[in-house]
Amino acid sequence: MNFRIILVEPENEGNVGSVARAMKNFGFNDLWIVNPKMEIGSLANALASHARDVLQKARTVRTIEEATDGCGQVVGTTAISGTRPSNILRTTLSPEEYARLIGSIDEQIGLVFGRESLGLSNEELDKCDALITIPACAEYRTLNVAMACTIILYELHKHLHQVERAIRPADSETRNRLIEHFQRLTDLARTPEHRRRMAIRAFRNLLSRGLPSKRETLLLMGIVRRACRLAERGFKAQKR
Amino acid sequence: MNFRIILVEPENEGNVGSVARAMKNFGFNDLWIVNPKMEIGSLANALASHARDVLQKARTVRTIEEATDGCGQVVGTTAISGTRPSNILRTTLSPEEYARLIGSIDEQIGLVFGRESLGLSNEELDKCDALITIPACAEYRTLNVAMACTIILYELHKHLHQVERAIRPADSETRNRLIEHFQRLTDLARTPEHRRRMAIRAFRNLLSRGLPSKRETLLLMGIVRRACRLAERGFKAQKR
Repeated sequence: MNFRIILVEPENEGNVGSVARAMKNFGFNDLWIVNPKMEIGSLANALASHARDVLQKARTVRTIEEATDGCGQVVGTTAISGTRPSNILRTTLSPEEYARLIGSIDEQIGLVFGRESLGLSNEELDKCDALITIPACAEYRTLNVAMACTIILYELHKHLHQVERAIRPADSETRNRLIEHFQRLTDLARTPEHRRRMAIRAFRNLLSRGLPSKRETLLLMGIVRRACRLAERGFKAQKR
Repeated sequence: MNFRIILVEPENEGNVGSVARAMKNFGFNDLWIVNPKMEIGSLANALASHARDVLQKARTVRTIEEATDGCGQVVGTTAISGTRPSNILRTTLSPEEYARLIGSIDEQIGLVFGRESLGLSNEELDKCDALITIPACAEYRTLNVAMACTIILYELHKHLHQVERAIRPADSETRNRLIEHFQRLTDLARTPEHRRRMAIRAFRNLLSRGLPSKRETLLLMGIVRRACRLAERGFKAQKR
């Protein structure tokens, strides 16, 4: 399993160092830094402690797109989980729930952590396949980014050293093809744009939580494609 | 349940601030500092962020004995767990194992964290009633003290609040309605009977693993119903 830890526009080099240390503690080594807001120097190195090698190998890039390039699954983190059922965008998993799922994914995964000050934007979160929120007290939900990262890596480490999963899920390419066909269907179904976007997000949520096997994914794709073909005909008939 | 977080001879004020923040994140507020090796000033305050109140209320004492006075249970933390059964002293619990136990303890508990450089001495560990070690990679077992504290408080919080799930899944009636509409769609799509049955099964599997919320279920239902309507028209158009 390949995890890429992606820090988006970190503002504090100490946090970058702390993340590197936690990564080595829990067996991760692929650190990507998107557009850092300061130099990563002696303080980062001091906090990385015996994980300076992780820091030295870290790749610095300019955009999240570069950092997630090649990732089959992109997982964002946010302190604000959507408890209101209306908030589809912010439907999140706990670190434990997520860690239970990943026994079964064998492609590159990008774990994305936001800025100290502002986290990840709604737009950035929307591009993620799944979201993680750490359960914390309502009074003060926002963890320091290095702490959040540490907790998630700790849960992953715990579960990676336990579980293999019974069902082998479809690769991301197959899953994405299904999503594309579903998008086409929502298009054909002339759903109002706002509902359409929400429905696609709901479908993606469902796939990232339910992790269908390749066979299941292809079966669903078959239905959606047939439905698209018929809907197209229906649409033409309607116009006549 | 009363937890006292006890930092023994901390050497870095940043860590003290980070511990205060993590405490507030997870609902703890009683911080004790034994013989700190530096002044606890602006850096600690900066890292405590919105948990400065925890820092300000913290009590500074001279010895571990003072800090643990009145505790019914004293729990130490160490990176070095005794895997050899001969090492009775260092037989440790994981944070999760410990968190499971505390449901049953209703007295003051002191959680003791050691120095950044040297942890807790054997003598200090020997005075503890129980020891916790965080499972980490053999290559680099020693976590930063603030990270270790954060992970343990996170596990305690998780178990004390027995995490209610972020997503409340749709009731079975709503889920079944979605399945019925999907069945109708497979019908309209004139899928061969065998594949049709499999596709319905795949869809049901996906729903039972992915557990969509009510809102998500209704959004998907909207798309499937619209697709059915169009497919019906398409089907009639084809027959003409």
